[in-house]
Amino acid sequence: MRISILGAGSWGTTVAALVCKRHDTLLWTRDPGIVEEINDKHHNQVYLPGFALPEALTATHDMEAAVSRAQLLIIGVPSHVFRGVLGRTADHVPPWIPVVSLAKGLEHGTHLRMTQIIEQVLPGHPAAALTGPNLAREILAGKAAAAVIATENPSVAGMLQTILQRGLLRVYTNDDVTGCELGGALKNVVAIAAGMAEGLGVGDNTRAAVITRGLAELTQLGAAMGGKAATFAGLTGLGDLLATCLSPHSRNRHVGEQLGKGRVLGDVLAEMVMVAEGVSTTPVAVQLGDRHGLELPICRIINQVLTGETTARDAYADLRHTPAGTESGPW
Amino acid sequence: MRISILGAGSWGTTVAALVCKRHDTLLWTRDPGIVEEINDKHHNQVYLPGFALPEALTATHDMEAAVSRAQLLIIGVPSHVFRGVLGRTADHVPPWIPVVSLAKGLEHGTHLRMTQIIEQVLPGHPAAALTGPNLAREILAGKAAAAVIATENPSVAGMLQTILQRGLLRVYTNDDVTGCELGGALKNVVAIAAGMAEGLGVGDNTRAAVITRGLAELTQLGAAMGGKAATFAGLTGLGDLLATCLSPHSRNRHVGEQLGKGRVLGDVLAEMVMVAEGVSTTPVAVQLGDRHGLELPICRIINQVLTGETTARDAYADLRHTPAGTESGPW
Repeated sequence: MRISILGAGSWGTTVAALVCKRHDTLLWTRDPGIVEEINDKHHNQVYLPGFALPEALTATHDMEAAVSRAQLLIIGVPSHVFRGVLGRTADHVPPWIPVVSLAKGLEHGTHLRMTQIIEQVLPGHPAAALTGPNLAREILAGKAAAAVIATENPSVAGMLQTILQRGLLRVYTNDDVTGCELGGALKNVVAIAAGMAEGLGVGDNTRAAVITRGLAELTQLGAAMGGKAATFAGLTGLGDLLATCLSPHSRNRHVGEQLGKGRVLGDVLAEMVMVAEGVSTTPVAVQLGDRHGLELPICRIINQVLTGETTARDAYADLRHTPAGTESGPW
Repeated sequence: MRISILGAGSWGTTVAALVCKRHDTLLWTRDPGIVEEINDKHHNQVYLPGFALPEALTATHDMEAAVSRAQLLIIGVPSHVFRGVLGRTADHVPPWIPVVSLAKGLEHGTHLRMTQIIEQVLPGHPAAALTGPNLAREILAGKAAAAVIATENPSVAGMLQTILQRGLLRVYTNDDVTGCELGGALKNVVAIAAGMAEGLGVGDNTRAAVITRGLAELTQLGAAMGGKAATFAGLTGLGDLLATCLSPHSRNRHVGEQLGKGRVLGDVLAEMVMVAEGVSTTPVAVQLGDRHGLELPICRIINQVLTGETTARDAYADLRHTPAGTESGPW
């Protein structure tokens, strides 16, 4: 099968490196330097420093060439440029082919999920999302992982499962696309909260409680938005959240940890190369909570720390002094 | 209120140290040495080395004296001696007083939960369980935590919440006693699996996937036994599991890690002072799975590692090579 992948960030490049072993794969990026590097030197120094890529993997910065040949299109660009890049494919994309999103996030302003954008920009193309606990570096380093293909179309699900499943990567299917995408997008709010707990040194009991109650908030919000509660306890919600909280490399955890140590958000972000998605997702979670009439106390207080209205230390003291009710209640 | 606590292990002593600040508290243990140590030196060197206990906390090894005065009875002895100790209270316990279990486990042979044993041995006494992510040392060290009082009786729940809730410990209520107790008992199977992943060095993606899919197995089993699925995603299931997996002090995680490094179970257990409950809970989970016709692949393969039928390395290779299906399927 001819597979084209748009976006040569760490995850797009990793997925391309996986599928190129059995499929004719072409990776598109707008950056001619990265194209040259992948084609000539077989690495991607900016996003995956130190990793050798398969020689079979080729790259291009010609969008028409990349898209018009594709029998399967995979989009691995960040959520804030997703619609723009997708729009550039519209004139070239062959009819009927499935389009798979690798991006975790919600569109700024509209709060749309990535597969909803695919349905708007490329109507008639089956949309799917590949999501779950997938730290790119570990997969490239040859470590195993599990992922989820989220799509409502069972024949597309089965086909993508066959294409993507390798000894290395076990791919489950889930038809709750809303739940799967929301888990991946919203989990970073809780990753920041858990990082903050670490920075403050509050201990493993509190870290465990905040991750658990934070996931309960995401589940409440996700269910109000049409996802299934059980999905958030699965790989795309809890699983992805755990990988983020366990990994020392997580950017969102890092931001939380630095805020927990009393640093200011602007200073923390200024010294980071890549984006910490949770910083922009947190206010969106609060807005969505307002729209659905939900309390979401952890999301709200993390947002107050990010805006500078309160400190991480005071945020945790506030949470601790709020009396607990029933476990099904807000906090 | 006059509160008596039976069992001066790490958690029983910690709960006694918390409640003695506002209530007339007496701690019973059969060990006269520990009684003397607590009364005279205000510490418990065997179970909580290095921690000073409040001077207000007094201990006794006279069961009748401890029980007959109580307006609230809390039992903090391990599950394998729970029924025996409870039986010794029967002749002395004042009528109607609530009995709270601190033990996480299932009775050997009968597979009963601790509150079920309370109902059998002390019928007419409201039974409750205090459970959740509560590493005793952190709480004694002054770090905050959240816990859950599980009981079907709402007035007992409210009273216990008031008694136990402090700035330090936030206490939620949950009327799904079955779910709360099963989560605490069964989570150690997954803690061993997660420890094994660490010992093998399989990476954070796989660790996150195994914890998530392991929790899904516990949820499946717990729901088949009458618990609510949502309870397992809460503090007594996921929360307790996370504290165990995050803490470097967890005994079950330690057993898993050593098995992951290729060591033999007998050697690992021989050098441990305290019991790793998961070692005895794992075969019970498998038996319960058989009774309810459930696959539980993670529980079964961990059991095979514990019995020596397979190695941790082969167990993980087996799990990796089993093709994934839908996310709601078995593994």
